[in-house]
Order: sequence, then C-alpha cells, then structure tokens
Amino acid sequence: MSAAHPGAVDLLVCTTCRRADPADPDAPRPGALLHDALAANGLPEGVRLIATDCLSNCTRGCTVALRGPGRWSYVYGNLDPAQAPLIAEGAALFRDAPGGLVPWRDRPEHFRKNCIARIPPMEAPE
Amino acid sequence: MSAAHPGAVDLLVCTTCRRADPADPDAPRPGALLHDALAANGLPEGVRLIATDCLSNCTRGCTVALRGPGRWSYVYGNLDPAQAPLIAEGAALFRDAPGGLVPWRDRPEHFRKNCIARIPPMEAPE
Repeated sequence: MSAAHPGAVDLLVCTTCRRADPADPDAPRPGALLHDALAANGLPEGVRLIATDCLSNCTRGCTVALRGPGRWSYVYGNLDPAQAPLIAEGAALFRDAPGGLVPWRDRPEHFRKNCIARIPPMEAPE
Repeated sequence: MSAAHPGAVDLLVCTTCRRADPADPDAPRPGALLHDALAANGLPEGVRLIATDCLSNCTRGCTVALRGPGRWSYVYGNLDPAQAPLIAEGAALFRDAPGGLVPWRDRPEHFRKNCIARIPPMEAPE
C-alpha cells in the first residue's frame, strides 16, 4: 500500500472466465488473458491486481471487481483483454473517489453500461 | 450478533428496485415490498436484514446480497416478495457455511439459477 494512496484498492480479475466462447479447452482462458493484459499494461499506484476464481458472472464475462476498505464494491462485465487501459482508468477513479462512489458521468462508458452489481461497504451498510 | 452464531451475516435488500415494471410511480416499489416480506417472514437467528440503495442489478431485480466478515459475498436476483421463505433458507445456509461457500447442490434452486455475482472475502482475496 502506498503512502501516497492510503485508500489503496483491489482490482480482482476472474481468471477462470471462458467468456462463453466455444474455445479450444487447451487455449488460455480469456480471463487469464485479461489478467495478463492488466499486468502488462500496468496499473495506477495504489491499485492491487488480484487473480481470483469465478466471480459468478459467467454469462457476461470477462469480469473484474473493484473494492477496498470502507468502499462500495463494484462488479463490471463484458470485458476484453484489449480494454486493460480502460479498466486501469476506472480503477484510478475508484481509488480516488470517497467510498468508491465515482459519479456516474465520470465513469468510463464501458463501466456505465456494464455494471453487473455493487455491494455497500461493510463498515457503513445503511 | 448472537452468541449462538458468532458468524452472523448481513442480508442486504435493494429497496429502490422497480423490477423493470411499468408500475404506478406512486405505488410501493417491489424492492421495498420484498424487504417488508422478509421482515414479516422472520429471518434465521444471526441474519441481519439491511435495506440498501440500488445494488446495480436493475435488469434482473429484485435483488439481495449476502455477506459477512471473512466470507464471500453473493448477489442474487430475479426475486419476488413471495420468495421471502426461500431467501431466509438461503441466508441460513450461508450463515452456517465456512467462508459463506454453500455447496452448489445444497443451495435453493432459485439461488443456483440466479446468482448475479460474487466477490471473495477481503481477508483472503487470493
């Protein structure tokens, strides 16, 4: 966690995602490719990339989630490895927004149209 | 939190949900009706009912989420107020399952078919 970003956040990537493709079972999974693309793209300071098992959004993958202490958690879907820069941009906005609440108009367009679900922070559920 | 259930959990209900109904704008919202049905049905010990704003699953509401410290969080959709007993059953299973990981076959059928997303616990993200 960076001292410059005491509100560091997690970017979870479902690496088991097949994205409903009838793909070669021996080929790398789209979710794993998305994870690798994010690692190669580089992420904003204070954003921690975490590979996870299934995020249960299989019909609308690939899928990422953004979360952090005291913040709303957001799940975004229908993502492609080519969108790593867009995801990094959205993660930085989330990191910098109090409570993770990025104003709707400020979010990347793909995030606006592909928000799968969100969950309020554990610390202030009401 | 009950001493009998030290792993008490939260059942979040989106009370702003319109369930894509072309409803009378002055009528109670389906999400609020679901919350009231859950309160009237009664919930298992150790399950805390929490009304929340939008859980961003508007196209597949009504929506609930189950979560608790050290547990995966789950979002379930396409729910109706008449399903309060089913939701209570699913909440009890979630409460009793280590990490919130109820085996797939043990979940209520509606939960199996309408899991919108899940997020791993903050405490053990990988």
